[in-house]
Amino acid sequence: MSRSDSPPRGRPVLLLTDFGSSDEFAGVCEAVIVARAPGTQVVHLTHGIQPQFVLQGAIVLRNTLPYTPVGVHLAVVDPGVGTERLAVAVDCADGRSFVGPDNGLLSLAIDAAGGAVRCVSIEDERFMLAPVSPTFHGRDIFAPAAAHLAAGGAIGELGPDVDATALARVELPQPRRGADGLVGEVWSIDSFGNVALALDEATLLDALGAAPRVELSIRNDRYYATVARTFGSVRIGEILLFIDSYGAVSVAVNQGNAAEMFRARMGDDVAIRPLPQ
Amino acid sequence: MSRSDSPPRGRPVLLLTDFGSSDEFAGVCEAVIVARAPGTQVVHLTHGIQPQFVLQGAIVLRNTLPYTPVGVHLAVVDPGVGTERLAVAVDCADGRSFVGPDNGLLSLAIDAAGGAVRCVSIEDERFMLAPVSPTFHGRDIFAPAAAHLAAGGAIGELGPDVDATALARVELPQPRRGADGLVGEVWSIDSFGNVALALDEATLLDALGAAPRVELSIRNDRYYATVARTFGSVRIGEILLFIDSYGAVSVAVNQGNAAEMFRARMGDDVAIRPLPQ
Amino acid sequence: MSRSDSPPRGRPVLLLTDFGSSDEFAGVCEAVIVARAPGTQVVHLTHGIQPQFVLQGAIVLRNTLPYTPVGVHLAVVDPGVGTERLAVAVDCADGRSFVGPDNGLLSLAIDAAGGAVRCVSIEDERFMLAPVSPTFHGRDIFAPAAAHLAAGGAIGELGPDVDATALARVELPQPRRGADGLVGEVWSIDSFGNVALALDEATLLDALGAAPRVELSIRNDRYYATVARTFGSVRIGEILLFIDSYGAVSVAVNQGNAAEMFRARMGDDVAIRPLPQ
Repeated sequence: MSRSDSPPRGRPVLLLTDFGSSDEFAGVCEAVIVARAPGTQVVHLTHGIQPQFVLQGAIVLRNTLPYTPVGVHLAVVDPGVGTERLAVAVDCADGRSFVGPDNGLLSLAIDAAGGAVRCVSIEDERFMLAPVSPTFHGRDIFAPAAAHLAAGGAIGELGPDVDATALARVELPQPRRGADGLVGEVWSIDSFGNVALALDEATLLDALGAAPRVELSIRNDRYYATVARTFGSVRIGEILLFIDSYGAVSVAVNQGNAAEMFRARMGDDVAIRPLPQ
Repeated sequence: MSRSDSPPRGRPVLLLTDFGSSDEFAGVCEAVIVARAPGTQVVHLTHGIQPQFVLQGAIVLRNTLPYTPVGVHLAVVDPGVGTERLAVAVDCADGRSFVGPDNGLLSLAIDAAGGAVRCVSIEDERFMLAPVSPTFHGRDIFAPAAAHLAAGGAIGELGPDVDATALARVELPQPRRGADGLVGEVWSIDSFGNVALALDEATLLDALGAAPRVELSIRNDRYYATVARTFGSVRIGEILLFIDSYGAVSVAVNQGNAAEMFRARMGDDVAIRPLPQ
Repeated sequence: MSRSDSPPRGRPVLLLTDFGSSDEFAGVCEAVIVARAPGTQVVHLTHGIQPQFVLQGAIVLRNTLPYTPVGVHLAVVDPGVGTERLAVAVDCADGRSFVGPDNGLLSLAIDAAGGAVRCVSIEDERFMLAPVSPTFHGRDIFAPAAAHLAAGGAIGELGPDVDATALARVELPQPRRGADGLVGEVWSIDSFGNVALALDEATLLDALGAAPRVELSIRNDRYYATVARTFGSVRIGEILLFIDSYGAVSVAVNQGNAAEMFRARMGDDVAIRPLPQ
């Protein structure tokens, strides 16, 4: 009886990659999606994953999940592009779908989305661009597959089913006890220089109690930090230990750059010891 | 009688922050908006405000206003996140709405939009994510509030009315006379290295007349510059003084980088003196 | 009989500029388009063309064309902004339109889109913002013109017809024989540090045959490289010569940064010589 003048809209597509924001890689993926599924709403979650750092990609994909509309996640951090690793599409229990390489990148998010209900290996060339470049599957395989799912296409058309329990997984770094206190690994440094550790609030409280001040050991240097709720709780230039917006124990300098001050890099150990009050 | 197959669209949302483009912060805010108000058109005006530089954010928000569709401006440059400063939403006389921290960031734009007609403190938890992170109100308070307004929700639902005349304001740096001529403060350096001053064309003409050549004093060094309409009006590598696209007196090097040449930083003084013809 | 509640949608607009991603320039252009043609889908292909490097812009615009929906390309790399060069809009045989400066930027893409069927000089002030800034035609001339075309407006309304064969062209650098082998010029360095040469696969094969190993000469240094399909085909840290996703002969380091290793810059010569097997 009634038809819209607008193209049909399916689910939104959410992009997360290590493509950076200076090249056209992310824009071309969006263009492919819009060309194949006109009117699709595309959200660029981030293209700032450290190049080829699958673990960081997996964590950010999981962390951002609660904030996203139910849609199709296209995730590409893919050092093995063009090799034997599978390209997969996964439907999850909460209605979200994931498209990306089978290298562990999707694993944490699939868990957070209630687990896989169906998983396929993307192999049908009708849903690929031709020719497929061996170095840019984001454009030639993953974007067309995501467009297919966003537009309401059946996941089973993309390729044969694979066992979701056999998908690659990432291993999360675990906090541990060290000579200088509780040790968490740096897994994220944001553009403000805030340093997030692979350490959650409960583990910190168990180990240190509610200490108001701590000593941090990073790269053989030691620093005092105030345990605080937010930046403005300490003086300008002061170091604070806080719980970041994803629940990770983090270190910052109010209106400063902690990563520069500490010369911190991804994967560094940060030890935390309570100071006597 | 007739309904669209597409989700309803309200007003567009325009984002301006200091989040940078390498992290997922801006993308997550867009995701929250799209999750709460499907189909909303989100325009990323900029995420390149210098971190926590409220004055620059306020000026860019005001400068870009004439170029935006009538919609909801979500602006976050928020060194006081998680402290006592209010989170506000403001409806203006020209139909635009603003959502952001009450730290002066919105003040110039509200004036430019005809002034506030209603202002509320965002306090109703129905329009927040739970829990609210003390360090990321952009995601947990401002984005949901903007989504509410974009979808046509009433501003009064967000929280109690506050007196718009009591909102924080920024103070614009003023040009002044100095020993080396008319002095304007650097308030913007763009990615081309063009340097914009807190100085408008009328003030420049009043002070210097229509001088074709000027001497610039920056960081104890002196430079000759040609007063010109545009880059291509001078030779490659030549310094020009021009009126930028927002009406600010600016300094550039044709096909070069003026900020690097001058080692200029935000807040530096630049003195301008006319040269004899 | 039936009307949509959503605003009408025309063709998508695809942006390619050298504006960078830290300033508001690209966002303001999108805002102008959305203000003038509500609901238009805007894809940011890239804003990372090296500032004022028209040749790179022309090549990327052409290379990305096959991946884009049929729409309006708004391209701005414009060192001559505000001078005598024309602002043009071009309809092409394949249904795509291009809007940008007449400095060669559009030339390769117009060819790839089947050639111009109509070309006009944008001169009608109804389709410009007022006043027109002499330094930001992207915002004041090109974006409104693109919005007009995206919304289905007639190209002839923008201004008088011009002869498409008289449009400026870029000259592509050509591979040549040198003392150290086949020489290609660096025309692109991406954010991974991968270095693309103005050299295609057929020319390489003609000159060198199917050599599995080559010697590269760059900036007076020599390197061994493996000819490979993709990054993962060689060991981590190893140099590979491969065909990139646009068909260009390229040099990379698996999980490393080739441009940094070579200190390569745009325009550098890279010589390639086959190694005995």
